[in-house]
Amino acid sequence: MRSRPEAVTVIGLGAMGSALAAALLDAGHPTTVWNRTPGRADALVARGAVRAATAAEAVAASRLVVVCVLDHAAVRGVLDPVAGTLAGRTLVNLTSGSPEQAGAAARWARSHGADYLDGAVMTTPPGVGDPRMMFLYSGSPAAVERHRAALSALGDPLDLGPEPGTASLYDAALLGLMWAALAGWAHGTALVTAERAEATAFTGIAVRWLTAVAGFMTTYAPQVDAGRYPGDDATVDVQIAAVEHLVHAGDARGIDGSLPRLLKATMERARDAGHGADSFGSVVEVLRAAAGAK
Amino acid sequence: MRSRPEAVTVIGLGAMGSALAAALLDAGHPTTVWNRTPGRADALVARGAVRAATAAEAVAASRLVVVCVLDHAAVRGVLDPVAGTLAGRTLVNLTSGSPEQAGAAARWARSHGADYLDGAVMTTPPGVGDPRMMFLYSGSPAAVERHRAALSALGDPLDLGPEPGTASLYDAALLGLMWAALAGWAHGTALVTAERAEATAFTGIAVRWLTAVAGFMTTYAPQVDAGRYPGDDATVDVQIAAVEHLVHAGDARGIDGSLPRLLKATMERARDAGHGADSFGSVVEVLRAAAGAK
Ligand SMILES: [Ca+2]
Ligand SMILES: [Ca+2]
Repeated sequence: MRSRPEAVTVIGLGAMGSALAAALLDAGHPTTVWNRTPGRADALVARGAVRAATAAEAVAASRLVVVCVLDHAAVRGVLDPVAGTLAGRTLVNLTSGSPEQAGAAARWARSHGADYLDGAVMTTPPGVGDPRMMFLYSGSPAAVERHRAALSALGDPLDLGPEPGTASLYDAALLGLMWAALAGWAHGTALVTAERAEATAFTGIAVRWLTAVAGFMTTYAPQVDAGRYPGDDATVDVQIAAVEHLVHAGDARGIDGSLPRLLKATMERARDAGHGADSFGSVVEVLRAAAGAK
Repeated sequence: MRSRPEAVTVIGLGAMGSALAAALLDAGHPTTVWNRTPGRADALVARGAVRAATAAEAVAASRLVVVCVLDHAAVRGVLDPVAGTLAGRTLVNLTSGSPEQAGAAARWARSHGADYLDGAVMTTPPGVGDPRMMFLYSGSPAAVERHRAALSALGDPLDLGPEPGTASLYDAALLGLMWAALAGWAHGTALVTAERAEATAFTGIAVRWLTAVAGFMTTYAPQVDAGRYPGDDATVDVQIAAVEHLVHAGDARGIDGSLPRLLKATMERARDAGHGADSFGSVVEVLRAAAGAK
């Protein structure tokens, strides 16, 4: 027997907040919504949401309160005046911010008797509600368990443990991976389209290639945890020899060379630190060592 | 009815050449091998390969001749003395090199009456023979068709058209994508492992996230071909705001900041070129524009 979907409040109805509320409605959750500019709620109300007249009314409506606004200052702006109504509730903060801001928000919420969960939405608004999309949570593993059904209506909830800042830290790290991969794709696309190839043709192959690249990451990750980086068939030395082709191919076609030169310099630093016969995983060590070098 | 597997010659028995010959033997192709240092052939001969006594004998043994040696100079060193035996054969060159070297090799092979196919092996030696692995070919679409069965024994043969340099250009572009993605992964891994997280835990999530990243590339590719970059939910301006979190998170943990700073500067250049409300796909334009800017 399944229990009835729990009531949820969504505060903040920008593109992301509206998508969150819509996904909760789709999953049958009684959903109360509030936004500083009330007009934003109209479409959701037409789909069955309850419009709260005030932020206090919104918080009072549900044990689970999801907030997704511009930044952490906006979170405090909305919730500070109604902090007295938070006791016994779970506050899920999907507002973007730093790990340090997540820690401060957790301390603030707990001081008012609320359980706090910080989250990062690893998709764009149209992806909300798709169970393949990742929602990262940290701060209260108990809250993830207690509200798993509602959180699962938004996407796949991944519990990263009790440290409130972890979801934000992973968020930053994953966005960094995204931008780096997209920059590599953009450079490759500039390169091949300089010679009549179409971006779509290249990208079909690039997307398939990413599966192999993911395999390298999966190979290197346990090496990082063990602190040993067997190079096997793809040592840093071998890759330094190959990156030269990339630098020259770009220069010959007038493509900006900043990225390939940075990649080359990064591998050379790994080599100079004694990792020439190691895998690319050893680059993690030289990035960490920057602290000491400065 | 399937025809009998055709005879193939493999010249060059380093780790990659040996893997190529082994995959051909596994698929039932009569395989002749030759290496400057003859001892390299022993294991393959034990598996059924025929050892040619000379390079001339190796070339004479098969209509399809695959060469995979250190570099293009080594290709010429081996084949120049036996150029007279190449007429009527197909030379498949899987040696790493630049697009310009591929063009020169094609002209040289054709001048001796051979059909020429340049190739790039998008896997490491242990991946050879796995039909999921990509082998990129360019130079002679007819040769890809004629020898599809033998080429398919090595991996999935992708025909990139008649320009001999295309496979090498794609190879460089795909390796650049790989290094960029791995550098982004390494930075993210350094970031999260600075806070007790394990590289393996982060990487499981990173690999899943790459599927979403691949989706962005697939969205942006037709934008590049069309020269228009609708930003929708993820404009360059929005991403510039978010990249600041990454820069700060790395600085606060003493992680090398070269990569996030380059990514930020790249997006700022796209914004300054008028692409603030466009997608990240517009970065391709600013990378191309480097030629004019220099
Ligand atoms: Ca967050
Ligand atoms: Ca090649």
